[in-house]
Amino acid sequence: MSPTAKPTIILDCDPGHDDAIAILFAAHYTNLLGITTVSGNVPLELTTRNALLTTQLLNLDIPVHVGAARPLVTEAVHAPDIHGESGLGGPVLPNLERTVAGNDAVTYLIDTIRKHDDLWLVAVGPLTNVALALRMAPDIATKLKGISIMGGSTSFGNRTPVAEFNILADPEAADIVFKSGARILMCGLNLTHQFDIRQTDLATIRQIDNVAARFVADMLEFFGETYAEQYFGKFTAPLHDPCAVMALTHPELLEFAPRHVAVELTGTNTRGMTVVDERLVKSDWPSNVEVAMKIDRDDALNALLGAIASY
Amino acid sequence: MSPTAKPTIILDCDPGHDDAIAILFAAHYTNLLGITTVSGNVPLELTTRNALLTTQLLNLDIPVHVGAARPLVTEAVHAPDIHGESGLGGPVLPNLERTVAGNDAVTYLIDTIRKHDDLWLVAVGPLTNVALALRMAPDIATKLKGISIMGGSTSFGNRTPVAEFNILADPEAADIVFKSGARILMCGLNLTHQFDIRQTDLATIRQIDNVAARFVADMLEFFGETYAEQYFGKFTAPLHDPCAVMALTHPELLEFAPRHVAVELTGTNTRGMTVVDERLVKSDWPSNVEVAMKIDRDDALNALLGAIASY
Amino acid sequence: MSPTAKPTIILDCDPGHDDAIAILFAAHYTNLLGITTVSGNVPLELTTRNALLTTQLLNLDIPVHVGAARPLVTEAVHAPDIHGESGLGGPVLPNLERTVAGNDAVTYLIDTIRKHDDLWLVAVGPLTNVALALRMAPDIATKLKGISIMGGSTSFGNRTPVAEFNILADPEAADIVFKSGARILMCGLNLTHQFDIRQTDLATIRQIDNVAARFVADMLEFFGETYAEQYFGKFTAPLHDPCAVMALTHPELLEFAPRHVAVELTGTNTRGMTVVDERLVKSDWPSNVEVAMKIDRDDALNALLGAIASY
Amino acid sequence: MSPTAKPTIILDCDPGHDDAIAILFAAHYTNLLGITTVSGNVPLELTTRNALLTTQLLNLDIPVHVGAARPLVTEAVHAPDIHGESGLGGPVLPNLERTVAGNDAVTYLIDTIRKHDDLWLVAVGPLTNVALALRMAPDIATKLKGISIMGGSTSFGNRTPVAEFNILADPEAADIVFKSGARILMCGLNLTHQFDIRQTDLATIRQIDNVAARFVADMLEFFGETYAEQYFGKFTAPLHDPCAVMALTHPELLEFAPRHVAVELTGTNTRGMTVVDERLVKSDWPSNVEVAMKIDRDDALNALLGAIASY
Repeated sequence: MSPTAKPTIILDCDPGHDDAIAILFAAHYTNLLGITTVSGNVPLELTTRNALLTTQLLNLDIPVHVGAARPLVTEAVHAPDIHGESGLGGPVLPNLERTVAGNDAVTYLIDTIRKHDDLWLVAVGPLTNVALALRMAPDIATKLKGISIMGGSTSFGNRTPVAEFNILADPEAADIVFKSGARILMCGLNLTHQFDIRQTDLATIRQIDNVAARFVADMLEFFGETYAEQYFGKFTAPLHDPCAVMALTHPELLEFAPRHVAVELTGTNTRGMTVVDERLVKSDWPSNVEVAMKIDRDDALNALLGAIASY
Repeated sequence: MSPTAKPTIILDCDPGHDDAIAILFAAHYTNLLGITTVSGNVPLELTTRNALLTTQLLNLDIPVHVGAARPLVTEAVHAPDIHGESGLGGPVLPNLERTVAGNDAVTYLIDTIRKHDDLWLVAVGPLTNVALALRMAPDIATKLKGISIMGGSTSFGNRTPVAEFNILADPEAADIVFKSGARILMCGLNLTHQFDIRQTDLATIRQIDNVAARFVADMLEFFGETYAEQYFGKFTAPLHDPCAVMALTHPELLEFAPRHVAVELTGTNTRGMTVVDERLVKSDWPSNVEVAMKIDRDDALNALLGAIASY
Repeated sequence: MSPTAKPTIILDCDPGHDDAIAILFAAHYTNLLGITTVSGNVPLELTTRNALLTTQLLNLDIPVHVGAARPLVTEAVHAPDIHGESGLGGPVLPNLERTVAGNDAVTYLIDTIRKHDDLWLVAVGPLTNVALALRMAPDIATKLKGISIMGGSTSFGNRTPVAEFNILADPEAADIVFKSGARILMCGLNLTHQFDIRQTDLATIRQIDNVAARFVADMLEFFGETYAEQYFGKFTAPLHDPCAVMALTHPELLEFAPRHVAVELTGTNTRGMTVVDERLVKSDWPSNVEVAMKIDRDDALNALLGAIASY
Repeated sequence: MSPTAKPTIILDCDPGHDDAIAILFAAHYTNLLGITTVSGNVPLELTTRNALLTTQLLNLDIPVHVGAARPLVTEAVHAPDIHGESGLGGPVLPNLERTVAGNDAVTYLIDTIRKHDDLWLVAVGPLTNVALALRMAPDIATKLKGISIMGGSTSFGNRTPVAEFNILADPEAADIVFKSGARILMCGLNLTHQFDIRQTDLATIRQIDNVAARFVADMLEFFGETYAEQYFGKFTAPLHDPCAVMALTHPELLEFAPRHVAVELTGTNTRGMTVVDERLVKSDWPSNVEVAMKIDRDDALNALLGAIASY
């Protein structure tokens, strides 16, 4: 990939292990202008701290802008059972030396989007910041090249039978984003569980033997163990968030299908579900999302190894 | 199958093409005590008329008891786009000579269930009658051997992206049934679209050359054409309702999995969905339904051909 | 009131103190054909027991038919905080000697309604039995002269800010009844709190000095005390259920207004609310209920004293 | 009222007739720092235009900042039936000469609130701007002295039986505001219909014979006529929005009661309702709003006449 082909992006995230790997991955394969943080996997102070620690550890010169401390309408939920209380359970982390660029994620998003003609927003946490920006400045929906989202699912959920964490954590924000008119790519659980790191992959990662490799391997060891506890004893580390970056940097590794996607807001058993229209029957619900259906795991892993090796 | 092995059943239905085939199939392979009708594919007068016409045409001595004229809470919806205005579009039907045994489906269900120790209820329409019986006589939930339902889905819907007609037509009734404590088998769209009759199968059916074969082939020709219009031009005639009979008569042809199934009542985009817990993650939602996942189409078709040939 | 002017009624109830007084009142002022019981203030076995005990104590020859053991869709809720664990806290009650006429409230309702041309149904508990009867036999909606309901409110609720117990206990049943097309009179909390028995009234009741007076006074002493605990220390015993009988027997003591009333089924804060259209602005929602707005407390109390004195 | 006693406010509004009168009233009786506009009675371009025209006509030097073009989650609704297509039907309006201070209502709100220790926000339109500001900058909830809202009702609604326009137009925004922890005063329809201008009052207003009097009288003539069409032929011009200003400037004319108020988001018949807990029974729902219950109409009218006369 030639440097000129690198997509220009902002990464909106709530680190979280897979968010940190998404930062690492994006910093190598994209022109990563900035990082915005949001309450999600852990509370905002921790997602912000984790974003800063990740850039510090990897020696990345990327500004971190702090965003929404809570979802739009619903109460905050977090996922310490998966990511640990700190959000980055596993690796021994250095003392934090970095500081944020500002408590201004939403205005940073708006201003930066308005300044660029080729910008993608990659959003891998609850969509609160993105929704706020869209309501503050509706023009950005079409000024953006698009929004690549990790969230939702075409099939099973994780936090409820049919809801995925990022969407469930702020369904109203997701509804705003999915209806915004922006071009949207969606990498849901149906996809991201295909990009699963297995215990045998950890050795391959550790062989690279640099700061990034140790960071990633330590995180995935923790991450895979927590999944093992939740997922019937099987070690698995699905790399959810990097998929949404890869959708831009390695589109040849994914298959997309145009679908109508609605976010369920009022369902007793289905709140936070991405309702994807996959009926066999003709539907008059127009497609508003390009939904990722397949990813080539082995090639995706190779892309990740390439990113790790670059540090 | 020895005659003594035949399950004893009542068939609650809303004919409808596949309901009529379910009657034909059940009359051969089960000890079919009676038929109860319900508003569904078409209004109650028509589903009752179609049940009577089917028994008349096939010369079956099975009483028909008329049930609920409308769903419990929600307004009635019908499916003339699939089944024709009469509910049995396609075959030339004789003048109706039969009469109903009574306008008493719910009390007939209660009384008959209480009288038998080995009775299955096969319910292949909206679940209004079954729900009313369960609320009138809660004891029947465990007196029944079980309820085999055609309805719902583990994946795509038909009337909405995620809701199947029978459940959507009376979600509150379905909720009552799924929570009743009765043993429940569920054949949803995920299964029934596997038992699809193709245009080439029609000739095979017609070769049997009896009244049943002509009736079935004429119906499926119509049914498959309406599906073709709705389903992107491809002739397909999924035999939804017979699956719920086959779950009892030919269990070796189906695979079931225990699942928690809830019926969504309040969702804006998901009302009438059967929310099936298929998370990879551990769930504390206990299984309440045996959900059919796979059916062997060719053997199922052979079973149907056997039933047709018996007339 | 001449005997011929007595309305003929069935009383559907869930005793409960005020239900027991409604029985006493109805047995004197109406041609009370029968009592049907439903789960409500206390579980069904207790409401049935209390109905039997009331008829036994007052020596009334009125059959008691047992109805629904639980609400249609929603889980059962009870009100022991108001009525005591037995449902008739307060009076010393005799041993039960009576037995029920049958476990057939719904079919009893249907059959009796079909046999009479001038029958009113007075329903003062959750509307489960009535809803089941309406779905089993839709013709009864217009065969009845009407249904006089104690339930709902035009203003404040009791169990939630805007929901009254009887409607909240089975909102789907209430929805069925309010949309049934039957003539409906509604005595809600806005009315029934106007017919409040005060501590000073208890002496007046006791002066009558018969079995009915002692029974009523003992109950109201208990009932008023529980209200006092809940209602900021003020003794008050609102005679909810007798109002719905009085709407038929003493219509001159009440003022009604025609209103559109809908039952809220899906509201997070409003489930079980009777949404009464009282906008100042023109509305195109047609009136479906005659809502009681005012009752003359003193004359209503005199009517009650008359009933008590008749025993 | 001494100048030093004037409350310092920002007025968030969607003119609208009564909004324009609220501007006139606030400019006289408060230290009005600025006006922010929001989509509501008419679309945003028109509410902004009407705010500018009002300040131009009255020669007020108050900046106008443009806010949200649509509600947070729900689709936009408007009220041209009451306010005319322009939002200020009635008076002959001059050509617009003013321009806005910026398209930055939300950041203007945040910045200004942070700069002042004694600022009130008076919000008399849909609460979209206020909700966005609260989510962008949660600290402002308690930095503000409070938010005085025209919206909701303790009783009847206008747009639905139980929902008032401003809350119904953006229920999620209202939910955010009512749960924000800010001190909240609420003037709902139960109050504002007490401050109704009658046809006979128009002459009194016209006698003042200045630009403000003509403006107000021309507006109210139109406003009262549209109400007359909707409200059963009776001319009435309820001065909704000025009440929320008066709650700060003339608190002695209003009576408030502390209440728990929740905004209904999911109700089929009740979405947008302010659910005010006015149960007679003890409630454990804590008070979060000071709800205005009574206003002295004649003194309120005198206060308005005083404001008009000052121009």
